[in-house]
Amino acid sequence: MKFCSNCGGLVEWRIPEGDALPRYICPSCHTIHYQNPKIVVGCIPEWEDRILLCRRAIEPRHGLWTVPSGFMENAETLVQGAARETLEEANARVEMGNLYAIYNIPHINQVHVLFRARLLDLDFSPGSESLDVRLFAETEIPWTELAFRVIHEPLRRYFEERQCGRLGFHMGTIEEIRG
Amino acid sequence: MKFCSNCGGLVEWRIPEGDALPRYICPSCHTIHYQNPKIVVGCIPEWEDRILLCRRAIEPRHGLWTVPSGFMENAETLVQGAARETLEEANARVEMGNLYAIYNIPHINQVHVLFRARLLDLDFSPGSESLDVRLFAETEIPWTELAFRVIHEPLRRYFEERQCGRLGFHMGTIEEIRG
Repeated sequence: MKFCSNCGGLVEWRIPEGDALPRYICPSCHTIHYQNPKIVVGCIPEWEDRILLCRRAIEPRHGLWTVPSGFMENAETLVQGAARETLEEANARVEMGNLYAIYNIPHINQVHVLFRARLLDLDFSPGSESLDVRLFAETEIPWTELAFRVIHEPLRRYFEERQCGRLGFHMGTIEEIRG
Repeated sequence: MKFCSNCGGLVEWRIPEGDALPRYICPSCHTIHYQNPKIVVGCIPEWEDRILLCRRAIEPRHGLWTVPSGFMENAETLVQGAARETLEEANARVEMGNLYAIYNIPHINQVHVLFRARLLDLDFSPGSESLDVRLFAETEIPWTELAFRVIHEPLRRYFEERQCGRLGFHMGTIEEIRG
């Protein structure tokens, strides 16, 4: 952010009076431009013992596999967002189930919210952001070709828990890998 | 948003190519300015059979009571945000417990995330955004002076469930009242 979205003036980066953190502030119109984490919402669409994954047609991680998910939009609920992303990326209709996982990714200012979902039919196909959409049994999951750590962790746990017959909510944090 | 925060030019409000929703777009530098829901994070701080509430010293709802909560900041986790808000608004230290409720408020583009928490000591006091901070037993809760519906619903449920000895996670949506 360089310019004020309200008046077009140059913004400053400093701590407003009475605040604890630096913000973008407009010295002309005095607007404080707060920046907050974004929600990424998605689901694990289930069909008998298989789950649906999408192969990404966009960056980042072009060509790798993930569950249907994306940025939550204004004016929708978490469940509506997860269903919309599933329709957009996989042309798939689901009945949303229980909340399954929430992962914080503080170094990129994201919170990922993942539901379980029941695929309503097999009439799915790649949306414009997917190269391919397929059902995978546990033994078929392309573990080395998953797009994101934030998908890898809950899917590992999903199959472990499913073997025990006990799928429960989990909250976790994906830490930055410093090299 | 009237001006592009990247180049200072006037933005347009239209649907970008390949998108489904209108966005603020800069015709000069081609930046698309996405706007997404914000997360409000808080907790129900418990001390024996009582819970801590704060009386708001700021608008909206100046003078009314609420649990410690506020906008999640970049670079923090949900639990860190809830603890930070509790420290800021009530100078209170808590051990965060289970996730208790998530409420969508789609008409104001917010998702509220509420934890249960254990107050670690009785050394609390009003922060700069609070007029008063007090512990309330169930019979003492100022139900008609609670600041927000998104607090009223989970607190009602909290005390009902506590009487049954079974506190469980709940997800809900606060709909706009049109009159």
